[in-house]
Amino acid sequence: MSLKTLSSQMLPAIESELQKQVARLDQPRTAVYHEMLTYHMGWTGQGAGSEATGKRIRPLMVLLCAAAAGSLDGLDPHNWQSALPAAASVELVHNFSLVHDDIQDNSEKRRGRPTLWTQWGIPQSINAGDGLFVLSNLAVTDLTRAYPAETALSTARVLHETCLDLTRGQFMDISYEKRLDLSEDDYWPMISGKTAALLAGCCQMGAILGGADSATEQAYRDFGLSLGLAFQVQDDILGIWGDEAVTGKSAASDLLEGKKSLPVLYGLGKNAGFAQRWQAGPITSADVAAVAKMLADEGASDYAQDKSKEWTDKALASLEKAKPQGEAGAALRELADKLLGRKA
Amino acid sequence: MSLKTLSSQMLPAIESELQKQVARLDQPRTAVYHEMLTYHMGWTGQGAGSEATGKRIRPLMVLLCAAAAGSLDGLDPHNWQSALPAAASVELVHNFSLVHDDIQDNSEKRRGRPTLWTQWGIPQSINAGDGLFVLSNLAVTDLTRAYPAETALSTARVLHETCLDLTRGQFMDISYEKRLDLSEDDYWPMISGKTAALLAGCCQMGAILGGADSATEQAYRDFGLSLGLAFQVQDDILGIWGDEAVTGKSAASDLLEGKKSLPVLYGLGKNAGFAQRWQAGPITSADVAAVAKMLADEGASDYAQDKSKEWTDKALASLEKAKPQGEAGAALRELADKLLGRKA
Repeated sequence: MSLKTLSSQMLPAIESELQKQVARLDQPRTAVYHEMLTYHMGWTGQGAGSEATGKRIRPLMVLLCAAAAGSLDGLDPHNWQSALPAAASVELVHNFSLVHDDIQDNSEKRRGRPTLWTQWGIPQSINAGDGLFVLSNLAVTDLTRAYPAETALSTARVLHETCLDLTRGQFMDISYEKRLDLSEDDYWPMISGKTAALLAGCCQMGAILGGADSATEQAYRDFGLSLGLAFQVQDDILGIWGDEAVTGKSAASDLLEGKKSLPVLYGLGKNAGFAQRWQAGPITSADVAAVAKMLADEGASDYAQDKSKEWTDKALASLEKAKPQGEAGAALRELADKLLGRKA
Repeated sequence: MSLKTLSSQMLPAIESELQKQVARLDQPRTAVYHEMLTYHMGWTGQGAGSEATGKRIRPLMVLLCAAAAGSLDGLDPHNWQSALPAAASVELVHNFSLVHDDIQDNSEKRRGRPTLWTQWGIPQSINAGDGLFVLSNLAVTDLTRAYPAETALSTARVLHETCLDLTRGQFMDISYEKRLDLSEDDYWPMISGKTAALLAGCCQMGAILGGADSATEQAYRDFGLSLGLAFQVQDDILGIWGDEAVTGKSAASDLLEGKKSLPVLYGLGKNAGFAQRWQAGPITSADVAAVAKMLADEGASDYAQDKSKEWTDKALASLEKAKPQGEAGAALRELADKLLGRKA
């Protein structure tokens, strides 16, 4: 079964589990609270639909890892379905972090729609983010539907440790905004927390639920972490040199926003023309193309490509070490290739 | 052993457990993040000390209930000490909600000190609140130090359900700010979530950890809920007619702030002089004494006193039904009397 076939079974099941979890708030007196969450999740309001929900990569990763690590073959429907509460929990965590992130970054758009705080205000949106976080905690305890309490608790602990890493990454990200002394050494810990920790957690949780031994569990975790890092570096490259038509963002938008991505930190470390231009003040649309070219000429694009390749190789090596089994294993390899090989 | 003796053993143990839990963030690159939490918890920074930590009533309640519900006598030190991670978890939840609440309410002072967001900004303080929340989740999983996974997971589930109630209450509280059509019917669900749910959760978690049967667990939960409601109504009374010298707040401060407390909602329901004055615009320090007297003359103070008495009686009846045992049981009764009988 290909990734396409398997995900066509998994994605509707994920959506249904998420709706069930969020429905805990569908009660008298909190109808608007529930509406805020269904809007953010992409199910209701203007622009609702598959564009608004996002790709649900993280819960898909939980299910694929659970099935691929399982002693049962990925074809057994009960294998991955038992892991659905964990899949929902990681997507709820991801969305909690987006709701708070949009407030913290003062972002007005998310997946093409107005962000929650622009519609319901900051106080209610902080609370809605908290609500998504609580729902993720409740979702993971629902693993006891199919698993022993020990397994549910081990999975929950990985979820919570992952969230701690997320808040650490977020702390660094916010604190970097005003700093001028950053180097590449500051980049990896931040991005490990902010982007890679959750993918690492997804793969590890899936492995636990698939019944993996501890070495295999670690291999799945390593796979997720390296995948997340490779993915983030690619995102950084696209944010500066990506094709506007493919990325959907304006060209070199990360330079306009002053984002301290890997290529920028590399350029600052070179302390040449790019660094001088960066320190002289905000980059404008008039000079962004020239600055992007200068940064590439100083080697930042090649350097980031090398780093991305390094993490991609590590991710694929960890995945082989994890020995993903059956159809789900094949689908997981396909998803990794797709995520790592994406062009834009 | 009196409440004083027992709490003199429990309170330092609670503080030590809390510090251990918060120390998970004491790592390179997140020293400031850790500092934010130790400041908020009352351990560091200007004004640190017992005034700044708060009374730790909620974790004390967990420990007393665990010991009083325990088949072991409250004197056995291992009885309540095993429940320490749960005690820490409820205090961390309480503090997470305070950090976000202060942002949501734009409050500049908490326990006599500048609030977190005034010192480190809103984005970092939203994240610090999230961090306290994650730490509470991790703390409760530490129950496996002494309890089977089933017990730890049941306790965690109560914690998470409690947090969902908290966010529901918070949603209502924020949404009430702009509403003019509120009545007493809107008061109880809000306050049940915002104030009473956490005390109910504390008592229930303690009962589970003490090994109570399900009827006893429910009685402890009911005790906590009624105690929380009685306490909140008393707080509402003090917020209007309290003695400034005792409450530490300016007299009738709730009227100045326009807080929709029980006496105010009662007065609005009367639709007489107080309601007219309230709807005419904000109450100022010049007329606050006259308005407070008018509200009392319309029967709001007597009504709130009756309601407080009603919940106090229910709390004490539930406590008797729970049959708290041993020295801890006696101490729990003493604490309930102290909380319910407080004068100011």
